[in-house]
Amino acid sequence: MARGDNSVLIVGSVALDSVETPTGKVERALGGAAVYSAVAASFFAAVRIVGVVGDDFPEEHLAFLISRGIDTSGLQVAKGKKTFHWQGAYLDDLNNAQTIKTELNVFENFKPELPSEYRLSKYVFLANIDPDLQLEVLDQIDSPQLVACDTMNFWIERKHPSLLNVLRKVDVAFMNDAEARLLTGQTNLNRAAHEIHKLGPNYVVIKKGEHGAVLYCDSDLCFMAAPYPLYEVVDPTGAGDTFAGGFMGYMAQAGVIDRDHLRRAVVYGSTLASFNVQDFSLNRLRTLTMNDINNRYEEFRRIVHFEPVE
Amino acid sequence: MARGDNSVLIVGSVALDSVETPTGKVERALGGAAVYSAVAASFFAAVRIVGVVGDDFPEEHLAFLISRGIDTSGLQVAKGKKTFHWQGAYLDDLNNAQTIKTELNVFENFKPELPSEYRLSKYVFLANIDPDLQLEVLDQIDSPQLVACDTMNFWIERKHPSLLNVLRKVDVAFMNDAEARLLTGQTNLNRAAHEIHKLGPNYVVIKKGEHGAVLYCDSDLCFMAAPYPLYEVVDPTGAGDTFAGGFMGYMAQAGVIDRDHLRRAVVYGSTLASFNVQDFSLNRLRTLTMNDINNRYEEFRRIVHFEPVE
Repeated sequence: MARGDNSVLIVGSVALDSVETPTGKVERALGGAAVYSAVAASFFAAVRIVGVVGDDFPEEHLAFLISRGIDTSGLQVAKGKKTFHWQGAYLDDLNNAQTIKTELNVFENFKPELPSEYRLSKYVFLANIDPDLQLEVLDQIDSPQLVACDTMNFWIERKHPSLLNVLRKVDVAFMNDAEARLLTGQTNLNRAAHEIHKLGPNYVVIKKGEHGAVLYCDSDLCFMAAPYPLYEVVDPTGAGDTFAGGFMGYMAQAGVIDRDHLRRAVVYGSTLASFNVQDFSLNRLRTLTMNDINNRYEEFRRIVHFEPVE
Repeated sequence: MARGDNSVLIVGSVALDSVETPTGKVERALGGAAVYSAVAASFFAAVRIVGVVGDDFPEEHLAFLISRGIDTSGLQVAKGKKTFHWQGAYLDDLNNAQTIKTELNVFENFKPELPSEYRLSKYVFLANIDPDLQLEVLDQIDSPQLVACDTMNFWIERKHPSLLNVLRKVDVAFMNDAEARLLTGQTNLNRAAHEIHKLGPNYVVIKKGEHGAVLYCDSDLCFMAAPYPLYEVVDPTGAGDTFAGGFMGYMAQAGVIDRDHLRRAVVYGSTLASFNVQDFSLNRLRTLTMNDINNRYEEFRRIVHFEPVE
């Protein structure tokens, strides 16, 4: 599949993650919302990343991003500082990470400054990060065509007004079920999605983890994606980020924003996420091919399609 | 849609249910696994019911079953005894009933005896009831073409050997996610379904409540059905039974057992269940039309279908 002309700009955390799951563990492996989503998007489009790392960030990780066609000129290196480090475990429940330690390090004083060519980006993904940083990045972009955001419970609770500002300015909001309920106070996810739509986004995607994802277009439920039937989840870290990255990458490649392409974007997002959780860190994505992705996309079709009323 | 020539024989509880949910409550309303599944199946095929009621069972309920084309000649009336009564509540969680009281009454000494014309039935649904009774019924049928069973945690724990006997003899096993995990000891539902397949059934349907249903054909996951996006669930009682009844009714009407028809059967089952939970007891099914059913079936298609790889 040929790459489109449109780049996807992504801002978010670039991290070293220490993660333990029932299957094993990794220490200071490559991670972060911007990294997961950028690599996922890179299967479909050129990607520009905005973020910051310390001078402890391994050269090989930068080389990997560049090898995926990701423009890292917007990735600052803060001398004498350490890269963001997240330590977490999924021991009782693969759907819920327990955070053991979050060391913000370089993110404590991060001021995003976009290289001039980044400012022309048409597809923008504000990955999970402080909503004030999401706004600072968005303000530097001239006339984006499709802007999406992700967030997490921490920002919903601690930076509510800033998050509402972000939501007013985006076209697509990605949230998992717990975040959607927390933000709106609605238990029913359809009602929660409607409340989020009223806050700004035309499109709301509720990610339900092992139960798939739902796309709302305006106030209409326009697509439900089944989960891919995995026999084992090795490490759920980055599932939501690879979902959003696959979604935005495909939309940039397609270059057309309509329900038909949004539905496919959800399936590509689900596909990328389903591969990503089959190994620690971004390991599965390192060897993944477009052929693997399209085969699984078609597998998704095979298991959900059925014939009309006779 | 014309009815097929094939009848569905259903054995299971015929009950008076007292149910409380966050929306309201009913006292001694019509219920029972055989009733829910028979009425759901009656939209597609002629139905024969096997069960027992006390002489307190309201005449109007019998009249309702007969008005749906259900043959009640296999429904015994035990003189001087009371109908099975279940009292339950769904106060904290609409996915989990709390049983407050189970009065077996007539079921304590029930011996199913099938009217002679029942013995020729080709489609048999052994709805949730003591597995020894399921076996007694099945033994009286000459040469069934498609036999399905349902069960519950109580029988998995208390009548394990008898339940294994049932599973060895059926083609389709319906189970909810918790029951599948309890029976097999497998947390992963795909693995659980494979274990159940090894116990006998060629087809395993895992019902995931608000998360839809999954059909396994031999050891292959052959279909995932999305849940219907309801804004409110009034009373979940009978959801699994109406699912199974819709499934079996459609299969009897179709008269062809292949993956294509099994997929549609899952969607019809989901459709019937989604209507049923929108009101207490069988109230929603009383006014339901085949047109309502087919419209929702097509709505299911609209929200899950997507285009192939470009």
